[in-house]
Amino acid sequence: MKIYGDSISGNCLKVKWTADFLGRSYEWIETEVLKSASRTPEFLALNPAGQVPAVILDDGRPLAQSNAIILHLAEGSALIPADAYERARMLEWMFWEQYSHEPYIAVARFQVRFKGVPLTELEPKIFDRGKAALQRMEDGLADSPFLAGDRVSLADVALVAYTREAEDGGFRLADYPKVVAWIARVEQALNIT
Amino acid sequence: MKIYGDSISGNCLKVKWTADFLGRSYEWIETEVLKSASRTPEFLALNPAGQVPAVILDDGRPLAQSNAIILHLAEGSALIPADAYERARMLEWMFWEQYSHEPYIAVARFQVRFKGVPLTELEPKIFDRGKAALQRMEDGLADSPFLAGDRVSLADVALVAYTREAEDGGFRLADYPKVVAWIARVEQALNIT
Repeated sequence: MKIYGDSISGNCLKVKWTADFLGRSYEWIETEVLKSASRTPEFLALNPAGQVPAVILDDGRPLAQSNAIILHLAEGSALIPADAYERARMLEWMFWEQYSHEPYIAVARFQVRFKGVPLTELEPKIFDRGKAALQRMEDGLADSPFLAGDRVSLADVALVAYTREAEDGGFRLADYPKVVAWIARVEQALNIT
Repeated sequence: MKIYGDSISGNCLKVKWTADFLGRSYEWIETEVLKSASRTPEFLALNPAGQVPAVILDDGRPLAQSNAIILHLAEGSALIPADAYERARMLEWMFWEQYSHEPYIAVARFQVRFKGVPLTELEPKIFDRGKAALQRMEDGLADSPFLAGDRVSLADVALVAYTREAEDGGFRLADYPKVVAWIARVEQALNIT
């Protein structure tokens, strides 16, 4: 398998962590978004959406969208709950991540850390919705060590990627103690640093 | 099953269409976003994210996020391809829908049709990205009658919901003839009007 990814992108790291956890071998092809490497004709032939990550599976077929890729790689593994309801809750968190978390938490980080935008120039909406997302996670972790049950799942892989970097975008993780404890728990379960 | 949904919301209609296609019985509880019905304490106890649709399954447990709900309802049905790669491509389209299509195509429609915002006052980014999304679909339908293979799947359910309403937000569907033909094909396959 070939993984086209940018090492600064949480979406790309999700794929790396999942493959590593599953012991899947792959070639990592560094694809730097800031150098427009995801907009070349070669890359667009692989993923017409022009987004990283994208993979070429062992049989030569392409696949894109971080959460679709990790769901495919992890089919039948311990990263996907066997129980149908827990599996559905895992998917609920994963779709929520792309709609209600990534556009604020990841975008704030990218703008501030990698584009040099001052915190004061970010849209207030980004902070309001990013804080709401972190609070939603804090509440979701009230009764459960992981997001979709008692064991680490792809919901945790998907959400930890940018949550652990949230301070780069001006969010204060100390305000969300259950989230802080969960980040450490997920990092340990996935063996990532 | 109880479906809490707003009839003007494509995300909610996805759940209705899937349940109808599968012959699942349900009670539809109209939950009007414009009247803040998704922000009441009762609703927030059901879905802390404050978004419709949300369902209460037959066993009394809640589930949210349109695409997670339809994936759960349709498990084992013809709406999810049996082939692992086609299933992964279906998921790729579904995650792409929430990240790269809904925030432009659905948001433009909502602002213009339901909030009364003049087309000229929408952010130009909404049009640029919305048009890119429609072109991505046009290209994706070049060789295939449906988005994830030869049969209708949840990818089509997820994407048709707002694509068929795109003109309400100022997009011109006639510029995307394969998309227009696909909308009719999906409407027929799902028996929706």
